[in-house]
Amino acid sequence: MSLHHQRAFDKGLDDLKRKLLHMADVAEDMIDKSVEELVKRDGALADPVRDHEQELNRLQIEIDEQALMMLATQQPVAQDLRFLVAAMKINSDLERIGDLAMNITQNAQVLLAQPPLKPLIDIPRMGDTSGKMVRESMDALINRDVIKAQAVIMKDDEVDALKNQVIRELLTYMIGDTQTIERGLALILVSRHLERIADHAVNIAQDVIYMVQGRDVRHPRARVNAAASK
Amino acid sequence: MSLHHQRAFDKGLDDLKRKLLHMADVAEDMIDKSVEELVKRDGALADPVRDHEQELNRLQIEIDEQALMMLATQQPVAQDLRFLVAAMKINSDLERIGDLAMNITQNAQVLLAQPPLKPLIDIPRMGDTSGKMVRESMDALINRDVIKAQAVIMKDDEVDALKNQVIRELLTYMIGDTQTIERGLALILVSRHLERIADHAVNIAQDVIYMVQGRDVRHPRARVNAAASK
Repeated sequence: MSLHHQRAFDKGLDDLKRKLLHMADVAEDMIDKSVEELVKRDGALADPVRDHEQELNRLQIEIDEQALMMLATQQPVAQDLRFLVAAMKINSDLERIGDLAMNITQNAQVLLAQPPLKPLIDIPRMGDTSGKMVRESMDALINRDVIKAQAVIMKDDEVDALKNQVIRELLTYMIGDTQTIERGLALILVSRHLERIADHAVNIAQDVIYMVQGRDVRHPRARVNAAASK
Repeated sequence: MSLHHQRAFDKGLDDLKRKLLHMADVAEDMIDKSVEELVKRDGALADPVRDHEQELNRLQIEIDEQALMMLATQQPVAQDLRFLVAAMKINSDLERIGDLAMNITQNAQVLLAQPPLKPLIDIPRMGDTSGKMVRESMDALINRDVIKAQAVIMKDDEVDALKNQVIRELLTYMIGDTQTIERGLALILVSRHLERIADHAVNIAQDVIYMVQGRDVRHPRARVNAAASK
């Protein structure tokens, strides 16, 4: 690549990074607002979540098109190539995080139409942790920081443990009083949406490690098997 | 590209298509077996699902590496470039379908440990329809068939309607008899896994349309907004 082309390419990369970070900020705000809607029982907080979703959809398309254009016209190799591929995978994760926040606001409609079942403690903690995982996975992307990406992957167990605790507790309510079943189910679904948000942050972290190291950490066991079968 | 390179590239594309179709066959078999496990109450059917999951993980990595290598070394453009990008997105969808079939077998553990709650009718129908959507989205990919891809997208409403019906019916059981709550919840989660499998088939169909037409159908509204804002 000539120096001129390299500069144009680097400018394109910076622009893509900026857009991805913006998507992540938007997604994180959607997580916060959708959980806050439940905790504060304020249905108006669903509006910004809905608006944001359109924005994420638009950004996803823009990033895909821009990355494709750069792939096609500038034919990058090695780390740059892997970054563009990672960008196209990560924007899908961020867009799905937005969809999951939308799902939480849908469950909130059921919950806000009835009296509160119980004070929410673990669900806001799940929201905090999963939001933090999204932010830290993006930090790892921008700084090509494998250690930070690995820390995000480790945190997933915490969210899973919280989700199991939420389900166990809600089941005792539901079994004790059939009046609580619909609300209990809605809260269980909220905890699953938050768990899946954390899973998407893990996907991003795995893509970062792959991008930096050029090796695939998504399925360590399959990796070993694939190596053994060669 | 020289004729020689074009031939090598076409051979690579054929190989990628073959692997993607194999992934889809495996994923479809996992859906069938996991639903059959529930219907026949046969826990042994979880074993092939688990084995298959390892295979999907391995294939996902192989396809990603192969597509990346082709992107880096052969620098395709236009439809070929879009096919490679689609292949890397579609293999993630197929791998996640396998994860969802695994989730179904996990719910089945809860269900098989207790007497049957009710004869399962809508859940096997959801399984059939979502499996068919996966197969048809892959047919659309191989034949670059936009009409077939659109038919897959249309079918998603059917699966959503079945899922809503399942949830409504199970809630009446759960409210009527608290003994049924744990099983009802497990079946509701199964129906959500199947709904998400159908969503992944829709993702694949959308990627096919994008690949063939070079336009993005994932978010029609965002598309219009993006066009309007230019």
